[in-house]
Amino acid sequence: LSRGYDSATAAEEAFYRAFRELDIAGMREVWVDSSNAYCIHPSGQLYRGQQSILASWSNMFQVAEKPHLQYSLINQSQGAGLAVHLVVERIGPADPAQTGALVYATNVFLLTGPSWRLLGHHAVQARSVPASQKPKPKLH
Amino acid sequence: LSRGYDSATAAEEAFYRAFRELDIAGMREVWVDSSNAYCIHPSGQLYRGQQSILASWSNMFQVAEKPHLQYSLINQSQGAGLAVHLVVERIGPADPAQTGALVYATNVFLLTGPSWRLLGHHAVQARSVPASQKPKPKLH
Repeated sequence: LSRGYDSATAAEEAFYRAFRELDIAGMREVWVDSSNAYCIHPSGQLYRGQQSILASWSNMFQVAEKPHLQYSLINQSQGAGLAVHLVVERIGPADPAQTGALVYATNVFLLTGPSWRLLGHHAVQARSVPASQKPKPKLH
Repeated sequence: LSRGYDSATAAEEAFYRAFRELDIAGMREVWVDSSNAYCIHPSGQLYRGQQSILASWSNMFQVAEKPHLQYSLINQSQGAGLAVHLVVERIGPADPAQTGALVYATNVFLLTGPSWRLLGHHAVQARSVPASQKPKPKLH
C-alpha cells in the first residue's frame, strides 16, 4: 500500500529519510519498480534494477549506524514526468567533532502513475576545486 | 553560429566528439549557456555555469592527448524538454595494450529553443560489483 509522492521533492525527502533511518521498506517504496532504475554508489559501483539496488542498500544498512545526513539542492531541472536534482549530501557520524563526507548526487525522478519515484541516484565523493581554477570574482 | 542538435542523442555525440578531439569550441557549442549547467569530473570536482565548466575542460585539454574514447548508452529517460542518459565511457590511450578507464556518466540534456544541449555531466570512475552482490541468475 504505497502512499506515493506528489512531487520529486517529496520523493527525494522520502529517499533521504529512508537512508537516515536505514529503512529498507521506505527505500523500496521510493524507487521506481523497474529494471531501468539505477544507482551508482560513491564507490563507483553501478546497480541496475530495483531488486539489485535494494540489495545494495540492504547490505549497507546491515553494517551501518544511522548516519547524520543533511542534503541541499544545488540545481534542479524539470520536464513533463521527469525531474533531475543535483544535491550535495553531508554525511557524518552523530558526533560533530568527527569530520563527515561531502557527496554530490544526481537524483533522477520519474512520474509513474500518480506518484513521483526515484529512477536514478548517482553519487560521488566531492572534492574541492583548486583555488586556481575557481572563477575569478567579477570586478564591476 | 550554432548548428544546434535535434535530439539529446545528437548533442551527446557532439559532446563526445569534442572530448575526443580536445575541441573547446565544440565543447562550448554543446553546453547550455547557463549558470545552471553543471559538470562533475571523475575527480569529484563540481563546476557550475558554462564558463566555469569550459575552463575546466580547457585546462584538461591543454595537458591531454586525444583520448581513445568510446561510450555506450546503458539507460535513458525522456520527459518533455529534458532527457537523462546513463552511459559507460571507455577512455584509454590509443595503444590497446594499455588498460583504459571505465567511467559512468549521467548526462542531462535540455531542449533550449530549437536545440538540445548538455545541462549536466556527472562522471565517476567505475568499479566492478563484487560477485557476491551480483543478482543471481533466475532459474526459470
